[in-house]
Amino acid sequence: MVDKKLSGAGLRGQSAGETSLCTVGKSGSGLTYCGYDVSDLADNATFEEVAYLLFNGELPTLDQLATYKAELNSLRDLPQALKEVLQRIPQDAHPMDVMRTGCSFLGNLEPENDFSEQNRAANRLLAAFPAIMCYWYKFSHEGVEIDCVTDEDSIGGHFLHLLNGKAPSEQHRRVMDVSLILYAEHEFNASTFTARVCASTLSDMFSCVTGAIGTLRGPLHGGANEAAMDMIQTFSSPKDAKVQMAGMLERKEKIMGFGHAIYRTSDPRNVIIKAWSEKLAHEHGDTSLYDISVACEEFMWDSKKLFCNADFFHASAYHFMGIPTKLFTPIFVCSRLTGWAAHVMEQRTNNRIIRPSADYTGSEPRKVTPIEAR
Amino acid sequence: MVDKKLSGAGLRGQSAGETSLCTVGKSGSGLTYCGYDVSDLADNATFEEVAYLLFNGELPTLDQLATYKAELNSLRDLPQALKEVLQRIPQDAHPMDVMRTGCSFLGNLEPENDFSEQNRAANRLLAAFPAIMCYWYKFSHEGVEIDCVTDEDSIGGHFLHLLNGKAPSEQHRRVMDVSLILYAEHEFNASTFTARVCASTLSDMFSCVTGAIGTLRGPLHGGANEAAMDMIQTFSSPKDAKVQMAGMLERKEKIMGFGHAIYRTSDPRNVIIKAWSEKLAHEHGDTSLYDISVACEEFMWDSKKLFCNADFFHASAYHFMGIPTKLFTPIFVCSRLTGWAAHVMEQRTNNRIIRPSADYTGSEPRKVTPIEAR
Repeated sequence: MVDKKLSGAGLRGQSAGETSLCTVGKSGSGLTYCGYDVSDLADNATFEEVAYLLFNGELPTLDQLATYKAELNSLRDLPQALKEVLQRIPQDAHPMDVMRTGCSFLGNLEPENDFSEQNRAANRLLAAFPAIMCYWYKFSHEGVEIDCVTDEDSIGGHFLHLLNGKAPSEQHRRVMDVSLILYAEHEFNASTFTARVCASTLSDMFSCVTGAIGTLRGPLHGGANEAAMDMIQTFSSPKDAKVQMAGMLERKEKIMGFGHAIYRTSDPRNVIIKAWSEKLAHEHGDTSLYDISVACEEFMWDSKKLFCNADFFHASAYHFMGIPTKLFTPIFVCSRLTGWAAHVMEQRTNNRIIRPSADYTGSEPRKVTPIEAR
Repeated sequence: MVDKKLSGAGLRGQSAGETSLCTVGKSGSGLTYCGYDVSDLADNATFEEVAYLLFNGELPTLDQLATYKAELNSLRDLPQALKEVLQRIPQDAHPMDVMRTGCSFLGNLEPENDFSEQNRAANRLLAAFPAIMCYWYKFSHEGVEIDCVTDEDSIGGHFLHLLNGKAPSEQHRRVMDVSLILYAEHEFNASTFTARVCASTLSDMFSCVTGAIGTLRGPLHGGANEAAMDMIQTFSSPKDAKVQMAGMLERKEKIMGFGHAIYRTSDPRNVIIKAWSEKLAHEHGDTSLYDISVACEEFMWDSKKLFCNADFFHASAYHFMGIPTKLFTPIFVCSRLTGWAAHVMEQRTNNRIIRPSADYTGSEPRKVTPIEAR
């Protein structure tokens, strides 16, 4: 077998398979899910409709959506054993380790026994992730054992309700819904590719999602909105932001939330979440964090021609809704799960095990020397 | 950016990166680790030496090995919280779900805070995996809370001691050691590639290994020795084996433990484990399972020119040592962890995020129809 040399490291620009789920930077549109532009979905659909679309290829009718939401709502509570596991995870744990472990543990209790159960497994995780995140957070940080069930109609509202222990505002519900839509799917990004490699051995849904969470955990993938938040909180004003960012650039420090591996001039998700961040700022009363974010955006474009990606204005938007910074990336999990699971389902329909080769750069053949003589 | 079309599905025959750790079917040798032929290592080294080799690039001296083993031996016990998690996993759980969850949970308690801790994290898992497997197994199946520490000198002996509650024979210790060497490393197989994709986002060691376990769980990857065991146990004699296998071929049933994605005429690991299986059969007294296995090997070669891979004679070898079939793939984890961790370390030394593209096969651009009109 002759190994073909790929041009770029990290398989950049190399096709590793087919998908009908998503385009990134193709067909005149920044980002589409099953043919729909992400901004059209963010304006005219809900996250549950997008989940249904990714899992079924078509948007639901009113009846289908009602049935689907009833199913999701019935799957929100956590088994007692999972709560007891979450109680044993310390407060200073990495929240993505918590999500990864919660997903993995649930796979022991409610395994996907065969692929006919793949939708049930995906929906179970979709419904349960907000509680996994909030149960651990509230128990480890506040010593409170929360009730994992709410009467919220949407996953976004359910999450905010669990986190704050009370019903969120309509605007907060809607922003969380839009945010979950924006992060839902993004083709063969690293975490999704992990899910597909795992699926290609015909492993189960919980394994695929667990592996994807672990991959999203890396600072080159998830976590940019957390890093952006940490940065903008150190700026006292729009003017200060520009001064300090100039220093960061001069010191060649990494600035998170700007640029993208695929997009070249803008991220189509930025304009959407930026508009919501502005609305939340006015609702919040103190707009300074939004104003600082706009200054950052202007500065990075003027000085480096770098644009805000989806993550940058998510930082201020989440902050205005009272979400602790350490939960930003776990929210990404709650959303991207839909893309991961859809890719797992797709990989299974036309599978070959993903097993590339490697170029060898190591030692020539050699013989073992007896240990006494080494 | 122009996407390059790869010739084969599953990235088969495509180089996805560089490695100095392993060759498969190259340089006149079936399988080498850091330049050493696997049969040379199986004859003249121990598993701990191989782990040291993979993590450091060179075999250890006597002093280095003594220091390394002392470190591993000090890392065997499990934290109480992890034991309590394992107690909550039911008897009928998939043993690979247990390994995946044990690994993931440990990452909450003892995180790899930065890459300077990568060897500690890998060694911790190497030392703790036998206890994770056996603690759950003995608790869920026999209601026994085992002591997770033994005075065994090797990981293989430690595992057998934990499983059986008593010191194993010298021959059993040696066979387990050889088995762990044979499974330690195999280039860019699917689970290792998962570990590298995860590592490429600069995620932590526990995430990478957790993802790899989930990938190995799939029946196209791990599990072939379990499937081989299930099959040969249904054969009453060598003659019956040939008759029944002929029927399986005629019915086009999948027969596990034969052939390989890379090797074309033989698997270099087979001759090694086959010889040990024969010795164990004679020690055991009843050689029928070995004789049946030989009949299977002859039949598959004569009828299909298919050879036994590493997994086939592992089935009888493990069985002769009294290992429950459901623990075969978790033992694979205890061994392959060394390869996974070594690849994670290697990926980190020259990293670029692994983010391929995909060929789009989905819907043309379309507009969201209001839900009432769908």
